[in-house]
Amino acid sequence: MPIEIERKFLITGDAWRADVARSETMLQGYLAGPPAARCSVRVRVAGESAFLNIKAAAPGVVRDEFEYAIPLADARAMLAKLAGDVVEKRRHHVEFDSHVFEIDEFSGSNAGLIVAELELDTVEAAFPRPAWLGREVSNLSRYYNLNLAMHPYSQWSVAERNADDAP
Amino acid sequence: MPIEIERKFLITGDAWRADVARSETMLQGYLAGPPAARCSVRVRVAGESAFLNIKAAAPGVVRDEFEYAIPLADARAMLAKLAGDVVEKRRHHVEFDSHVFEIDEFSGSNAGLIVAELELDTVEAAFPRPAWLGREVSNLSRYYNLNLAMHPYSQWSVAERNADDAP
Repeated sequence: MPIEIERKFLITGDAWRADVARSETMLQGYLAGPPAARCSVRVRVAGESAFLNIKAAAPGVVRDEFEYAIPLADARAMLAKLAGDVVEKRRHHVEFDSHVFEIDEFSGSNAGLIVAELELDTVEAAFPRPAWLGREVSNLSRYYNLNLAMHPYSQWSVAERNADDAP
Repeated sequence: MPIEIERKFLITGDAWRADVARSETMLQGYLAGPPAARCSVRVRVAGESAFLNIKAAAPGVVRDEFEYAIPLADARAMLAKLAGDVVEKRRHHVEFDSHVFEIDEFSGSNAGLIVAELELDTVEAAFPRPAWLGREVSNLSRYYNLNLAMHPYSQWSVAERNADDAP
């Protein structure tokens, strides 16, 4: 059973940009998600590649996850006809102390939001904390990409945004 | 864009069994479906193979469809943890006049139900009508496998079953 352990953080400042190894543009939408389903079903176009991803809907950092490469044309058709609102972002890969942080810089209706994700082998695994790493938001559901599709950052209240910036 | 054109019929009698070329056991469940989603997302185990299938939720016989082979272990995990109720059936392949009818003989909570499916190139395509081919039910949503998972044949009312048997 594939398991994904992922921690998510806000970002402080722009210093991380100096260490970007590579970047790619992503478009993703959801065919299904909780509460109607027990999992999210995501279609992602990343550069010229495309993937179907199925992730258990349990909250937190440990989740069952399945991912399959699919034809680009299929993904584009599904995003156009079967998915809800599409999330656009640029994913930057930043290596720091032998760990790779994936920093998602959103555009479109989520412009202004930047978050860093880190995959780990265990929930308790130690990891580096670069100076630009901000508050952890792993357990805040409004930062799930599924929720960013339905309730984008541009529509967040001042309270929702300010709470994010608290230490 | 892959398009599926499929017509579905009830079966009269057992004469079709003499022409079965091969049969396989199938288990399938749904990760999502309408009305919450614009498509159904189906996991199927067929013999030792497994597939993920995404089908647009539009009613009738013409539907967008995408299908991908996936690892058997993934499918079994998804059926156990992420899908709703699982539909069990034995699929028989019956060739008749250069067309292949797929005859699904359900078991478990749908035991007693047998339907024949025929894939066609166009909605209006001519096709043979063997003597055992009964009433067409392509447009009756209670025969969709998605609905058989949620409202199985064993729970159908007498009226639902009798209406099926009308000419």
